[in-house]
Parts: sequence; structure tokens; C-alpha cells
Amino acid sequence: MDLAAIYHRPDSEFAFLYQPDRLRVRLQTASNDVEAVYLVYGDPYILVDGSWQPKTIRMQQGLITDLACFWTIELTIDRRRLAYAFQVIGVDGTSTFYGDQGPGPILPKIDACFRMPYFQEIDRAKVPEWVKQTVWYQVFPERFANGDPTNDPDGTLPWTNEAPQAQDFYGGDLQGVIDHLDHLVALGINGLYLNPIFMAPSNHKYDTRDYRMVDPHFGNDETLRQLITACHQRGIKVMLDAVFNHLGDQSPQWQDVIQNGAASRYADWFHIRDFPVRYQPGRNFEDATDITYDVFATTPHMPKLNTANPEVQAYLLSIARYWIEAFDIDAWRLDVANEVDHHFWKKFRQVCDAAKPDFYILGEIWHSAQSWLSGDEFSAVMNYAYTDAILDYFIHKKIPLHQMVSKLNRQLMLYRDQINQVQFNILDSHDTPRLLTMANDNRRLMRQTMAFMYLQPGVPCLYYGDEYGMTGVDDPANRKCMVWDPVDQDQAMYQFVKQLIGLRHGKQKLLSEGQLEWLIEPTHPDVLKMTRRLGEQQLTAVFNAGQTAVSVASMRTPILSEGVQQQTAATIIEPDGFMIY
Amino acid sequence: MDLAAIYHRPDSEFAFLYQPDRLRVRLQTASNDVEAVYLVYGDPYILVDGSWQPKTIRMQQGLITDLACFWTIELTIDRRRLAYAFQVIGVDGTSTFYGDQGPGPILPKIDACFRMPYFQEIDRAKVPEWVKQTVWYQVFPERFANGDPTNDPDGTLPWTNEAPQAQDFYGGDLQGVIDHLDHLVALGINGLYLNPIFMAPSNHKYDTRDYRMVDPHFGNDETLRQLITACHQRGIKVMLDAVFNHLGDQSPQWQDVIQNGAASRYADWFHIRDFPVRYQPGRNFEDATDITYDVFATTPHMPKLNTANPEVQAYLLSIARYWIEAFDIDAWRLDVANEVDHHFWKKFRQVCDAAKPDFYILGEIWHSAQSWLSGDEFSAVMNYAYTDAILDYFIHKKIPLHQMVSKLNRQLMLYRDQINQVQFNILDSHDTPRLLTMANDNRRLMRQTMAFMYLQPGVPCLYYGDEYGMTGVDDPANRKCMVWDPVDQDQAMYQFVKQLIGLRHGKQKLLSEGQLEWLIEPTHPDVLKMTRRLGEQQLTAVFNAGQTAVSVASMRTPILSEGVQQQTAATIIEPDGFMIY
Repeated sequence: MDLAAIYHRPDSEFAFLYQPDRLRVRLQTASNDVEAVYLVYGDPYILVDGSWQPKTIRMQQGLITDLACFWTIELTIDRRRLAYAFQVIGVDGTSTFYGDQGPGPILPKIDACFRMPYFQEIDRAKVPEWVKQTVWYQVFPERFANGDPTNDPDGTLPWTNEAPQAQDFYGGDLQGVIDHLDHLVALGINGLYLNPIFMAPSNHKYDTRDYRMVDPHFGNDETLRQLITACHQRGIKVMLDAVFNHLGDQSPQWQDVIQNGAASRYADWFHIRDFPVRYQPGRNFEDATDITYDVFATTPHMPKLNTANPEVQAYLLSIARYWIEAFDIDAWRLDVANEVDHHFWKKFRQVCDAAKPDFYILGEIWHSAQSWLSGDEFSAVMNYAYTDAILDYFIHKKIPLHQMVSKLNRQLMLYRDQINQVQFNILDSHDTPRLLTMANDNRRLMRQTMAFMYLQPGVPCLYYGDEYGMTGVDDPANRKCMVWDPVDQDQAMYQFVKQLIGLRHGKQKLLSEGQLEWLIEPTHPDVLKMTRRLGEQQLTAVFNAGQTAVSVASMRTPILSEGVQQQTAATIIEPDGFMIY
Repeated sequence: MDLAAIYHRPDSEFAFLYQPDRLRVRLQTASNDVEAVYLVYGDPYILVDGSWQPKTIRMQQGLITDLACFWTIELTIDRRRLAYAFQVIGVDGTSTFYGDQGPGPILPKIDACFRMPYFQEIDRAKVPEWVKQTVWYQVFPERFANGDPTNDPDGTLPWTNEAPQAQDFYGGDLQGVIDHLDHLVALGINGLYLNPIFMAPSNHKYDTRDYRMVDPHFGNDETLRQLITACHQRGIKVMLDAVFNHLGDQSPQWQDVIQNGAASRYADWFHIRDFPVRYQPGRNFEDATDITYDVFATTPHMPKLNTANPEVQAYLLSIARYWIEAFDIDAWRLDVANEVDHHFWKKFRQVCDAAKPDFYILGEIWHSAQSWLSGDEFSAVMNYAYTDAILDYFIHKKIPLHQMVSKLNRQLMLYRDQINQVQFNILDSHDTPRLLTMANDNRRLMRQTMAFMYLQPGVPCLYYGDEYGMTGVDDPANRKCMVWDPVDQDQAMYQFVKQLIGLRHGKQKLLSEGQLEWLIEPTHPDVLKMTRRLGEQQLTAVFNAGQTAVSVASMRTPILSEGVQQQTAATIIEPDGFMIY
């Protein structure tokens, strides 16, 4: 048995409260190495005739990666405190115990067992139930709809299907979103994620000038309030984008630093290495070298905020609270969240929780994010590593099926189950090429990929216009004006997306919480079969990601499918086809 | 290569800021499996000619356990942000990269690398420098010295060398500690750890009745203030014991619950399952069954506090602040710290940090404690798993040398290096048999074991009276009255302990921060050789834990030794002997 590959970390995603009285435990072993795992557990203080008499329960074999197998169990215990160890039986017939001081031939003494010292409800990672029920729609406000031409910026260009330039303006605004809420409702959307709307010079508004003010080209407080009210009336939650890692260089604070140098009262709001602040222009507007202050990426226009400064903390936290309390928003999406300190985010979480129950906090983190997802910082992160694996398999054909499954399982095992259920799953966004473009305009492939993603744990987010087959390579081409002319709209795509969202809502609890099982037959390396299972409920889907049609045993009538022919003796799934039943 | 055994966890003890601009990185692999590991790293935003051009640096082979090898490196980077991956070369000649999504044949793309997104000084785990320079002395106040007979409890027994009974009182008090501070100074002690001193009915005072009041049998506020002042004048820091997991059942709060049941204003201060609160008496005073409220262990006299209740939090935090601000204590030792929630301890840390710079917080946690030692809760924990391995090898002869070394190394790799440097190392305490008793009265063995422990990372703590060879099995026999009659004092032991403490102080920086190297020769499985190394400084020690004398190559004159004969051609170390040079 590969003893060196056994891993468990107490008080982490390997041992966590799933419900107040339900503990979930995981053990990682090498794959194909272990026959069975038993959890040995008991109340560490209760002795029977002077000896500890723990219970033994068999763990389930859970998700498997190319290298690792995860064993899981859910349990409860009367006094809410636990000492535990594992008994691991190898496929080679050997057996070992595994406790807090490593493996050994006998059950460790109590003090050498792992501990869940007490089921602390206050420490349990909690997620808002409504998020699990949500299908998000991401709007890049400058490009969604121009509802109020009176607030257009100077030089606003006519609405167009052409790709924009990086600095273009087209007049999109909040009134435009209000005007089209019925479009969202008809699709089945019940969550609206808006890219930044606070006053900022750029069209993307990640270079905030004033966090307290709706950008006048987008509307004003009243427009925003109308939008949020209209959303709530329609059962749509609203998430705004908070850019707290950095400030825009047009902000009064940074301008004061430019004016007054080290004497500025804002000098310690940033990370400044040398005054006067300066830089050498680089390849383009968003690039520079020899910058004498810390910035986002290499752009001199986004000086990094010093969130360790109590004044900055108080300022940003007041902003966070303001938009929740005064405008009743439901969620914050946090830009470049990984580059802001944990101390700040812990306070941020407390402020949001106090301001509104069941508030959702979504961090932009592209890499593994355990230390932000323990329950006291974010509710979830943007699930790029997860969706990247999906794209690499379905769209880019860069990895084989077993590798995608391995990568997805690995990601799922990074976090507590309740976190996985509210992870933010996107296939494209303002930061990536459009899905249809990545799919080389293969609409069936796009639909297959979306169908797969909507069946995953976590919540899907639709990027505006994907439902009409919009295209575009990287920024800025992925930020085209929304197609409102029916002539340019892919109505078949719209109908598909609507159906898919309907399916997601109809099976929400199963898709959020159900166990995930992969059924891969080595003889069909491009046919992916998966099942979600929750109690009596279950849903199965089959995807053909290969180049040729495949024949599978006849199945029940699908609830959603594409490229499928039901024949008497078999069901044929064409390339890029799929069926869900 | 055993790919399944490779482990790294970003933003944890595997990747942490050691100094503001110094990052330390660890990688775990299977032992005897890997030839070399390289860290590949760079600023994720800085591209040269459009491509990421990371640096490569060879990692050092660090500590090794029976199963795992830890590779380490310390580095810095200009812009304080890092993407990194590992290149691992197997002893079988194979090579793999290892990044945030697991192993692979090529360097992962930047988004699939691990990240240290920004060197956040505010998040860095910090420890007080003075703790590293401290040798602690633990006093169980009821048994150390009776300096003021006027405050003796009724029924106080005469001071004696006999073992006490569980409920006995002998009149020890704070004035007694004051009276004997010169004894501590002469030994070289510069930290005083007092078991609880707040008002409580028992002799151990873990059943607090009033956290705001010095127990009248120990003295009063004035006595405590005198003690602390006298300590500080002598360069001795003072640590008090905070019992915040539970309250004593004689406390007014619990008495109110008994009186008023569910209507008590303190009903939510505890975890009560059914009113009226009740239980069935058990085997002894500290045991019960069918308790209708949560307690410490199984004792009905220690009802567990509900630290999720903001009122309880405010109350306990005010206590924590009070003794720091009003009495200038330097450290809190936290009883049963693992069974109190993380939310509370995070607030506790903030309160202590705000009340006094460089405050030390020591948690009583017997098992692995990563989630309390990330820098925002405790400074350290009582290092039982570490010292247990030492006892199991040297004293109990239960494990072979390689296993002790494996266990010690495993413990060291659970925590950040700066945490290891302030871990609280004890060989005995009021909760364990006396060291000399465990050593079957073998004084040389006791000295050998102490010598080994004082050379370890972490800070040693001497249990009162060990310096005079006091004995005693488990509680209550380990809590005998201190021997003050010179006739009963082991003066040779005193001289040894004094020398050992002197050595510890003289080599403090090396022993705190130096690299630890084990030199074990398979031909001498009972001869342990170890070296501590820091820059040019180094110290080596050899221990004979076997049954027969061993001959080792002649060495320099030791700075401390026992059972050693220098001969012309060789040095002979007797059983239980050692030399440090």
C-alpha cells in the first residue's frame, strides 16, 4: 500500500460540518491502491470500563483522480465532539491505521487520534440557500442596452454588431438593463451580475474614481434603485462588482498623492516605494515599467490599495455596507480578491453578514482557494479551474476524458461540499473569448458544453448575448454590443438556453446537492456518461465528444437532447450530441 | 516516482512569509523517492517578449520522516507576488512538474501555477521575539510555597513531601512565589507560567467562580501586582492560565441557571439541552452521566461556555483585556483551547494584540493544530505530540530512534518555522507524571532527556521542583508540595538544570532558529547525533540511548556532558550519557 500517499487534514475540507450536527470526513489515498477504508470514531471523553470503545463505520469510495482516491463519510455524534482515526485496507491485503501522527499497525491512543474537538456551529461554513437556486446572467453594462441616450458619454458610437475598440463607448446603461428585464425573466434567469457600475473613466469601470457614485453615464442612484427593485419584484437577485484591490488613478485620493507626494494624507492608502510617484510608459495604456508604487498587474492607472491601513479598511467597509443597506443588493463579486489580505476579507464578511442575512460573497480567484473558503471570508470563488477543464476537453480537445474527470474531481475535493454547491461556474466572460468563438462557431458543440456545465455542482452564469449566439475573441471583442435586432439573434440558441435553464431549475436540488458519479467505459473513450443522485432522485446524461456517431443501449426518452436518434435497438448519438434523461 | 505522494498546499505551512519579504516554501514527496526538486517561480504579471520567463532555483532537502521527505527554500521577489510550480526529479530518473492542478510533463501555464498572490505583512504569522529567549517555569500555586499563612483555606494541611489527595489544600499562594523569585533567577528562569489563580473552589482552580478576582487563598490584586512587578524587575515574563472553555458550577452565572432554569438571563451562556439542568453522578467527583448540558470532559462541575453568544464573548474578552491592561501580564495560556470556537479566538487575538505589543498566546491543544496557528489565533500550542515522541524514545523505550526522529520531523512540518520557534515544550506538567518518576528514578536518564529537549526548536518549560528531583505519578501525586528543605533537594540535579538553562540562553538564537540535522548511523541505532546550524554557528550533541557504552571518534571538549570519558583515541559515552559540543 502506498502509505506516503495517504492524506488527511483535520478541521479543513477533509473534516467539516456540513449541517450543524453532520460532520463530513474525507481521506485521500493513492488511486487503485486501497480496497476499503473504515472510520474509527468516538467521544474522546467517554470510556466504558476504563477504555475507549470507538465505533467503526465503512467509508464510501468517492471521487477519483488520476492519482488519488477520496473516501468519504457523513456522521453525527451525541456530544458533538470526536476523536477519530482511519483503518485502511490495501488492495494488496495489508492494513494500516492512520491517525494524527501518521500510519501505524494499531489504533492510535486517543491523544494520537485526529480531533473534531466540538461541533462549532459558528465556525461552520454556511452558504445562502438561494444561490443554489440561481442561474446568473452577467451584464457588461456599457454594452447591454442604451436605455437613456441623454446620459451617453461624449463620442458615443452607434450601437453595432462589430467588435469594439478598447476605449470605445456605446452608451449602455442601467435603464437599458431595466428595459430588458423581461428578456431575463423569459429565459429563466434569477440572478443578475453587473460588471462595475461605479464612477470610473473607462468603459469597464475597473479603475474606480468614486465607489459611492453610480457612473453618470450609467444612470444615478435612482436608476440603480429602480433596477434593483424591478429585479427583486421579478425574483432576480442582484450582484455588484467591488474593485477593492486597487483604485483608479483619477480618484481624488490618488490625485492627492500625485499633488502632495509623501505629505498627502492618502500617502499610506497605497503601497508607495518612492515619491514622487512615477513610471515609464510601457507597451500600451495598461502597461508600464519602473513603477514606484504597487499596482494591479502592470497598469499604472490602478494603484493598489493598502488594505492593512485601518482608514482604508473603514472606508472600503463603509462602501460595502452602504450599497447593501441603502440599495438592498444581494451579493458582492470581488475583483482580484486573492491579492487583498485575509484580515480585510474577514472583516468584510462580518460587515456583509451583519448588513443582510444570506448575503453572497464571490471572490475572483483563478487558482485553488482553500484559505478563502473556510466559511469566514467568501461564499465561493469564480470556478475557472473547473470550467477550464470542461473547455479543455469539450471545446479545445486538448485533454482526454479521464483527464477532465480527474481535474474536475480534484477541484471538487479542494473545498467543502456546501462551498462546491455555490461555486460560480462560467464558460466565458468579459475576461475570456466568447464560448461560441472558442467552439469555432460550432453551435452544437456550444450547446453540448453548456448542457454539461449546467449539470455540474455549483451555479451557472450566462454571459450576456450567449443566448443569441454572440461571438468575439478576447477583450475587447468579447464585449460587443448586445444584439437586439431579431435578425441577428440565433433563436434556436435562445430556445435551447431557455430549456437548459428550465431543466436546471426543475432539477435544482438534485444538481446542487446530488452525488456525482462518472461512468466511463474504456471502450468508448469519447463517450462521457454521468449521473447525479440524491436519495431516490437521479439524472443521467451521455455526451459524445468524439468524431463519429456512437450507438448506446436504448434509453428512456430524454428530457433534453441534441444530435440523438432513437432507433429500435439502440440510440445513436452524433458527434457533439448529448442526451439527458 | 510516487506522484500520488507529492503534496503542497498554498497559503499554509507549505508556503508562508517567514519575514516580511521572505517567503518559505515546502514540498512533500515520498521519502527515498526524489533526487532533486526545483522551484520555478516568477512575477505572474511580468512577461518578457510576451512570455512568462520564471526563474528556477534548487530546493534543499529538509526533514525526512519514515514516509515523507520535505523540500524547502526561502526566497524573495521584487513586486511581492508570485506564481510558482515545482519540478521534481525522481531517483528513477523521471521528471515531473507539479502545479496547482497536479503533476504534468510540462511547466503549467501561469493560471495553473500555485500563487502567493501578494506578500501581505498583515497576514504573516508573527511571534514575539522574547518568547524565543525564554525558559519557562511552571508553578502550580497551591503547592509552590505558602508565603502568607493568614490566607490559608480551612483545613489546610501541613507542608509535606508526601503525595496529596485530590481535594487537599496546603496553603501555597502568590506571596510564596514572590518569596522565591530569587530561586528562579538563580536557575536562569525568565518566564513564569502560573496555573489558574482566579477564584475557584478547587485547589487546581480550573473550575472558575470569578475570573475578575484573585483567589483569596492565593492573595489579592495587590499581591498579584507585586508578583508581576517583581518578576518584571527581574526580567521574568508572566503567563496566566485562562479557562474560557467552561465555567465552574459555583459561579454566579451557573448558579443563576440552576435557580431560574430556562428563564435565567444566563441560560444562553451555556449549551443546555434540557431544563432543569441535571445529571447522574458517576464514578467520582469529576464524572457524571446523563448530563443535560455540555461540559468539559464528563465533569458536571464545569459547564461549557457558549462562546458564540456575543454577551459571553464580550464578557470573556473584557477579562482577557483586564488582566493585561490592569496587571501587565505578558501571556495567556488557554485551557482546553481546541474546544472553543475559532471565531472567538480570532477576536481574542485582536484584543490581546491591541492591549499589549508582543503578547504571547499559548493554546492547550494536544493534537495537530494548524488551523489555530496561522497567525490570527494562537502564537503556539503546548507541544505534547513533540515531547511525547521524546519521552517514548528516551524514557519509555517504546519506539526506535528512527521513529522518534520521524515523529519529531513530522510535527515540525505541521507548522510554519516561526511558530515552531515558540512552541511550548514540556516533559512533564500538572497533567502528567513527573519526569523523574517516568524515568524510574534514573537521574542520568532524566538529565539526558532534558538535555535533548533543551536543544530542540521551541521553548522549554520546567515544571516546579523538577530541578530538585521531585517525583510523583499522575494527578494528584504530580502536584506535591515543593521541596524547600535542602535535605530533600537534589543539589546535583539543580546544578545540572542551571547549567542546561545557561546553555540554552547562551546559544538561544542558534537553538531557536538554526537548521536541525539528524546524523544517525545505522550501525549505532541507539546513538543519536544531532546538529543545529545557523550561518557560521553550530552545535552538535550525541546521546547514547542504548544499554551499553559506545565509543565515538574523539571530539572537542564538550560544553555540557554526562557519562562521558575522554580517552586518547576515542570518547566513551555510557548508557544514558550525552555530550554537547
